[in-house]
Amino acid sequence: MTDPIRLGIAGLGTVGCGVIKIVQRRADMLTARGRRPVVISAVSARTRNKDRGVNLGDYAWEDDPVALAKRDDIDVFVELMGGSDGPAKAATEAAIAAGKDVVTANKAMLALHGQALATAAEENNRVIRFEAAVAGGIPVVKVLTESLAGNEIQRVMGVMNGTCNFILTKMESENLGYNAVFDEAAQLGYLEADPNLDVGGIDAGHKLALLGSIAFGTEVAFDDVELEGIQRITIQDIELAADMGYRVKLLGVAQMTGRGLEQRMSPCLVPVVSPLGQLENATNMVVLEGDAVGQIVMRGAGAGEGPTASAVMGDIIDLARGIRVSTFGQPAKTLKKAKTAKVSIPAPYYLRMELKDKPGALAKITAAIGDAGVSIDRMRQYGHTDPTAPVLIVTHKASRTALENALSGMADTDVLIGEPVAIRIEAV
Amino acid sequence: MTDPIRLGIAGLGTVGCGVIKIVQRRADMLTARGRRPVVISAVSARTRNKDRGVNLGDYAWEDDPVALAKRDDIDVFVELMGGSDGPAKAATEAAIAAGKDVVTANKAMLALHGQALATAAEENNRVIRFEAAVAGGIPVVKVLTESLAGNEIQRVMGVMNGTCNFILTKMESENLGYNAVFDEAAQLGYLEADPNLDVGGIDAGHKLALLGSIAFGTEVAFDDVELEGIQRITIQDIELAADMGYRVKLLGVAQMTGRGLEQRMSPCLVPVVSPLGQLENATNMVVLEGDAVGQIVMRGAGAGEGPTASAVMGDIIDLARGIRVSTFGQPAKTLKKAKTAKVSIPAPYYLRMELKDKPGALAKITAAIGDAGVSIDRMRQYGHTDPTAPVLIVTHKASRTALENALSGMADTDVLIGEPVAIRIEAV
Repeated sequence: MTDPIRLGIAGLGTVGCGVIKIVQRRADMLTARGRRPVVISAVSARTRNKDRGVNLGDYAWEDDPVALAKRDDIDVFVELMGGSDGPAKAATEAAIAAGKDVVTANKAMLALHGQALATAAEENNRVIRFEAAVAGGIPVVKVLTESLAGNEIQRVMGVMNGTCNFILTKMESENLGYNAVFDEAAQLGYLEADPNLDVGGIDAGHKLALLGSIAFGTEVAFDDVELEGIQRITIQDIELAADMGYRVKLLGVAQMTGRGLEQRMSPCLVPVVSPLGQLENATNMVVLEGDAVGQIVMRGAGAGEGPTASAVMGDIIDLARGIRVSTFGQPAKTLKKAKTAKVSIPAPYYLRMELKDKPGALAKITAAIGDAGVSIDRMRQYGHTDPTAPVLIVTHKASRTALENALSGMADTDVLIGEPVAIRIEAV
Repeated sequence: MTDPIRLGIAGLGTVGCGVIKIVQRRADMLTARGRRPVVISAVSARTRNKDRGVNLGDYAWEDDPVALAKRDDIDVFVELMGGSDGPAKAATEAAIAAGKDVVTANKAMLALHGQALATAAEENNRVIRFEAAVAGGIPVVKVLTESLAGNEIQRVMGVMNGTCNFILTKMESENLGYNAVFDEAAQLGYLEADPNLDVGGIDAGHKLALLGSIAFGTEVAFDDVELEGIQRITIQDIELAADMGYRVKLLGVAQMTGRGLEQRMSPCLVPVVSPLGQLENATNMVVLEGDAVGQIVMRGAGAGEGPTASAVMGDIIDLARGIRVSTFGQPAKTLKKAKTAKVSIPAPYYLRMELKDKPGALAKITAAIGDAGVSIDRMRQYGHTDPTAPVLIVTHKASRTALENALSGMADTDVLIGEPVAIRIEAV
């Protein structure tokens, strides 16, 4: 098979230009591996005249990505525009209708419209691949879909938003508050135009929902991801958690429970000595657990030109090689609707609170916790002479309901100053 | 496509039975993912009457794996016998000649005969897949071959023999000598019938040679892997290295240099705080470095029923899905003969020695090192009052030749007691 595989690339930002550079610089290598030359037929972006540091002179230009997607001289539509709706979705739909395969880095589009797009693609006998959409250069989509296909997946976890991990690790290493590091991240260009996509956990939640679908054979259910961002995490909690042997991570967890699919993207504590606990800066990590394979941990760059372009190129070479796998690992019409677990699996919790300095305060709090059926594993009280010194409690495993009852009982005492902080401790 | 994919499994040890259990227990899941039922037509092993804990009653039996490999009612020959030659190779050759695809966990066979077998398979339009042969459950073959296909690979590293890592970490954690932990590993059944395959680095060297071929598009060159086992590693070196911030690992490194392909499987020091340095017990880790993706780290179980069977099943579902990739990532006839680098890339070295307790001893040693063009980064002398107390030196980066000249110069002084120990420090 020596017919070239012809690309139409929509979106010429960092990733799009990264893909073009690889195609230009590594033509022989790609041909040897894919057994077909990889060529770019046409490109599209919002602005034509802009120095992007790559030579686009050999490629046809389209102002309209939908027109690009329909061109007769492309086999694969490479969607690198982003955005859950609008031009990205319109062009992807047009590409599928025109009989093109699609390679995309667009987590938002697939998290919201993946089921419809995958169904349309399969009806047209086309595939959508999206390795670059989840965890950048880490090949988690392929590993989960293909390598672990013989496993009943038990749990998928991941630190999949580099910006949040950068903020959390920088707060700890430089002893800075959330706002100061947030501002630094903004200056470094690490934040999306809407920063809540990052720090609110939405971007990482999109990724988790995609992995959950593959892992459990269910339709993508982003709306059912329980989302909590990192905005409430204080330097005080980071330091006190470290004192107890934990680090704070914005951690995604998807697992199938007896009560349905549980998907959470929220700040969790993990042991400092675990691979997740050791993860620094903007690096991503994904943990896959299967009944046969046990635990697989993968670490790598979650964003950036090279890593993301690497993931896009992997999908393109797959298509050149004739590798055609259903978007979510099995035909979209066979995916089940996920029944969402309303209550998460029991876990230990970290509780921080300030108590009024009066006799019996601690006894009232511990009684409230015990009355809710939650038992205490470890407790620390700092600085007895300082009336605002915190009390830390690590509970044994407790259900969410029991924890909420404990918090409610604590609020009913008259000894709390402010609201207590509760953070789940995930077993990793 | 609803025709089943029909397996003939040769070898009913731990892994073979693990594969059978998955096929029996997860039939619906495998059919959903592979879009074809996975069925076992026939099996073969040395002993027929043996309780293996799985029901073989539905499968035809062959005493001869070659006969199994040729059966008309199989599509895929699953070779789980092991051994570089003999029945495994004969049956694999027969399977290819009979038009079967092959899935194998046999690193020795592929390291020694991979080029010939891959060529034969490709001439017959068949594929050989071997995810289970390298690092057990870690899907490094697929990730390197497929996910990173858009990368020029710069370096591949791995701790890929769980037994050696078990021995080295157990020596440190329990402060035991090599022989004591070796005996414990033997009692736990962790050692191959010929233990030198493990502790001599041969098994891990086979795996490295396979990854080197994929990474650099070269014919498998196991004979060119520089092999050194862990037998000379003492508890003293483990403890002193830890004192300097390092752990000892049996580390494989393959990289393309200006002077050719460098492949080493040998004890190396890595920083305690690195992912490789944190690797405990029998767990494996592979580090892949590509020009676009940067560094990808993968960790998981390198052996055992479940993890190895998971890897075998991944290959089988690939074949069910029609995923057909050249054995080493590109057609065997296009692989280049590797030019082997005779001299390894410069690195810092750890040197431990005992010096006679006489004036000027250290000066003579440091002079010998300096005369060889090797400069010293750090030095420690322990227990000045103990005449046999060691001197530790960590050098700056030095070429192998310079290091050997330094060791030779040191030997020419009259102040050494015994032979100095030198261990490479790998930048990870």
